[in-house]
Amino acid sequence: MKIIIVGASGTMGTFLSNELEKEHEVIRADRHSPDVQVDITSTESIENMYKKVGAFDALICTAGPTHVGPWKNLTDTEFRKGVEGKMMGQINLVLIGQHHINPKGSFTLITGALTHDPQRNFANASAANAAVEGFVRAAAIELENGIRINAVSPTVIEDSPQYFPFFPGEMPVTMKQLEFGFRKSVFGANTGQVIKPY
Amino acid sequence: MKIIIVGASGTMGTFLSNELEKEHEVIRADRHSPDVQVDITSTESIENMYKKVGAFDALICTAGPTHVGPWKNLTDTEFRKGVEGKMMGQINLVLIGQHHINPKGSFTLITGALTHDPQRNFANASAANAAVEGFVRAAAIELENGIRINAVSPTVIEDSPQYFPFFPGEMPVTMKQLEFGFRKSVFGANTGQVIKPY
Repeated sequence: MKIIIVGASGTMGTFLSNELEKEHEVIRADRHSPDVQVDITSTESIENMYKKVGAFDALICTAGPTHVGPWKNLTDTEFRKGVEGKMMGQINLVLIGQHHINPKGSFTLITGALTHDPQRNFANASAANAAVEGFVRAAAIELENGIRINAVSPTVIEDSPQYFPFFPGEMPVTMKQLEFGFRKSVFGANTGQVIKPY
Repeated sequence: MKIIIVGASGTMGTFLSNELEKEHEVIRADRHSPDVQVDITSTESIENMYKKVGAFDALICTAGPTHVGPWKNLTDTEFRKGVEGKMMGQINLVLIGQHHINPKGSFTLITGALTHDPQRNFANASAANAAVEGFVRAAAIELENGIRINAVSPTVIEDSPQYFPFFPGEMPVTMKQLEFGFRKSVFGANTGQVIKPY
């Protein structure tokens, strides 16, 4: 299977790329990847990525920039980071990618527990995650040719301990659990689901 | 109680304004209202509205423009209607309004069943609704001085029969049910809730 992993140099993307390339053709995509570059905040950059890669079977996105910071400094300007990044970046990967993906292919986007379990400083991520999950449910009833779409929604992840203090009492998801979540979406048959790998 | 109703000339806004002004001071806000004008896609216009109105006790938003149309024509451009309108329009009403609202005041935003029950042609509304609901949960743990925030999420509404064909099998919410939903948010004690008035 030919799998594009967007955000391939990040914590999640690196782990997933290393695991999945044992059995599949993995295209590592991010801003500076030697495989293919993409800036998900630009529709032109997304178009160029798909043109370079050609037909593919699965897209996994692990990239989702959002604004993290005190509520009292939060204005429209800061909020746009998550709107353009984690939200519209991922939505545009699907709106554009549907014209390049093979029949029976799949899109797997990244959200997170903040959708339903907010934490201080993360309102931008809560809104962006929720938007992506709403989009995933809607896209699932629209996509044709057997193309599927799901989101993977972890809590904090094992290999990003710098975030633990911001998520009091949140049990970290192991990297292996996270991999299981993505495997369920890519190699399973579900669509329109928010997969919680814990 | 001094209550701003944004979208006051719409189907929901007119009904709510007429009911609530029997007992409260209602400020009818929309693009052409004689009370106060506001274009929620402009942060400057929102600022101006709050400056004109002065301190208030509750803001209700019933305005939420989104793009409705075939999935196959859906690109970033069409998707922005709901991002700027129903999503960021309502989020900015809160981010800016928190500096003008009285202690123990409340914000009540509008979402809809499409968050979890998608219908064809409405992916933009599904994402915008979900974003607003994620934001409401996050804002509820950040707002100070006893300020509350909720969303009201109806299905199709009784007085908008033109939408019934797009929502097969969806039981319409009566205008009175809708009013109950908003009353629960404005006059109750809950915060961070998505109120389904049915």
